[in-house]
Amino acid sequence: MRLNILGYMNERRQTIFFENEPQIIAGGTIAGPKECTSIIGGYVDMALTDDMFGESTFEKAECSMLSYAIDRAIENGGLTRNDIDVMLSGDLLNQIISASFAARKSGIPFLGLYSACSTMSEGIMLGAAMVNAGYARRAVAATGSHFASAERQYRYPLEQGTTRPPQSQWTVTGAGACVIGKGGDGVKIVNATIGKVIDYGVTDVNNMGAAMAPACADTLIRHFKDTSTLPEDYDLILSGDLGALGSRLLKDLCEEKGYDISVNHVDCGEIVYKVIEDEFQGGSGAGCSAVVFNSYILSKLKDKLFKRVLFAATGALLSTTSSGQGESIPCISHAVELRS
Amino acid sequence: MRLNILGYMNERRQTIFFENEPQIIAGGTIAGPKECTSIIGGYVDMALTDDMFGESTFEKAECSMLSYAIDRAIENGGLTRNDIDVMLSGDLLNQIISASFAARKSGIPFLGLYSACSTMSEGIMLGAAMVNAGYARRAVAATGSHFASAERQYRYPLEQGTTRPPQSQWTVTGAGACVIGKGGDGVKIVNATIGKVIDYGVTDVNNMGAAMAPACADTLIRHFKDTSTLPEDYDLILSGDLGALGSRLLKDLCEEKGYDISVNHVDCGEIVYKVIEDEFQGGSGAGCSAVVFNSYILSKLKDKLFKRVLFAATGALLSTTSSGQGESIPCISHAVELRS
Repeated sequence: MRLNILGYMNERRQTIFFENEPQIIAGGTIAGPKECTSIIGGYVDMALTDDMFGESTFEKAECSMLSYAIDRAIENGGLTRNDIDVMLSGDLLNQIISASFAARKSGIPFLGLYSACSTMSEGIMLGAAMVNAGYARRAVAATGSHFASAERQYRYPLEQGTTRPPQSQWTVTGAGACVIGKGGDGVKIVNATIGKVIDYGVTDVNNMGAAMAPACADTLIRHFKDTSTLPEDYDLILSGDLGALGSRLLKDLCEEKGYDISVNHVDCGEIVYKVIEDEFQGGSGAGCSAVVFNSYILSKLKDKLFKRVLFAATGALLSTTSSGQGESIPCISHAVELRS
Repeated sequence: MRLNILGYMNERRQTIFFENEPQIIAGGTIAGPKECTSIIGGYVDMALTDDMFGESTFEKAECSMLSYAIDRAIENGGLTRNDIDVMLSGDLLNQIISASFAARKSGIPFLGLYSACSTMSEGIMLGAAMVNAGYARRAVAATGSHFASAERQYRYPLEQGTTRPPQSQWTVTGAGACVIGKGGDGVKIVNATIGKVIDYGVTDVNNMGAAMAPACADTLIRHFKDTSTLPEDYDLILSGDLGALGSRLLKDLCEEKGYDISVNHVDCGEIVYKVIEDEFQGGSGAGCSAVVFNSYILSKLKDKLFKRVLFAATGALLSTTSSGQGESIPCISHAVELRS
């Protein structure tokens, strides 16, 4: 175990190492019409023209998108549901109903996660951990979100037409999944860094980027230290959904600690839309990093255009109740390192 | 790996085996005044006289109880927070705010889970998996619930004084945690069975026991098959919070498949209260199995009065939104096998 090699048996580690080469065998993605006008439109498995996906409610549409992404990832890997031993999933809806109902449909043994918009990297981390240790032959990690279900749960009814402040982001309508297994020439999951909950006292629920940036910085820096690497060792450092403002804060926070990520950092929220006035700071939501990572980024990793990627999805762990009771926004970011 | 020994490399397994003897080093528990009138009152670390625990809201009280249980488990193990590499926790509140805010307070790297009232066994399973594989030196698994926060989130404001139907259960006010590590003479976590989401079409949100019993039966039977054991091999088969009605259904469902658990099955929800008229079928909530398991049961395991226990917490993965949209209640149960 790396634990002993590094000789810090009595110190806390946040980074876990996978010696047995767990890999991403295949990804599956689906995204809404608005999302597909950006570069990711050319990489997703299904580009929706109707964001209801044939369902009667936004929540059911979100769940169906998640199911689609899971089934498509399994199919893209040349597998069937029976080949998957565990499904790791969660979403933004209360009691993660999208994931729970998708798990009901799939029949795959299910471990429910909640990590808000950092669910994708938590799922990949735990999937790799399960496969690496031989607990599962293959795992599927998945998450998604829907603009309309998130708006009405976290903010206001859409019908109200509330004005969005300039620091706000736009929740991505879409879902992404990947199948993790061993063998083959997939994209290797080398290690993963478990995030801590970080809270700098931001209370503005419309400014998720500012709230989440410190958690992302904390995890990235811890990752660099645990792995004895520097930002320039990576072709890409990919954060989840900090948006434009949050990304600037992340760069500043890293620089303060002596890590310059300005050259190779990209945020999924900045590339999931052609940034126009409506979305302000860019994309957010659990589906944001799930769609971007499992379509565009995974494709580039497979083609070896990126050789080493550090993917740190970012989550804000607030609820309407916690905000209503005057709490600030606790945030988290989990990171996984991928190599082609 | 057991995977190869058993020679079913190409079949799905739901049970994972821990060869390196991960153990429960210590537990920590806290429960409300009503809960402490039952047998568990003599086993918890703190028996509350005020279920607000000095806080201004029910949700904050729930979070503080969870924090207390975590800190107390760590302290009971003769450890400090720095000795714990990962916290695995979730709860019933939207966006698991109790767990997220407890993680903020603890500063321990955090993996958020959502598995409703089966969170305790999901947490123990993943904690054992992390420790067994050498990913973490020690993990803490924790969950809790509060009667008043659950009532107002899932059902009605308490002030409304809604009549409770006879099939209903009473959400436990309390929290439980355990520290999982290696070495020593703790209670061994031998294996764990990952549950599937099972839904028999129950739509009555006041009848959680009936909704969850089929999921519990499915996991128990799968566990018996995967481990080549029978109910009589266990001193105790402990379900989470099926209550009196759900427990009867569980026994019937198991018997239908040829497994007679009637002699050694006990449900945490049946023993957490002196059953009086108010609670009808008994206790429920994530705190139900967390408190009972980490106090009374763990104590009996440590004293070797129980030598082999199968603990299957049970969760209903519904939300007010899913019920409002006409969905039935998807349920899950994860099982862990413990030996003293």
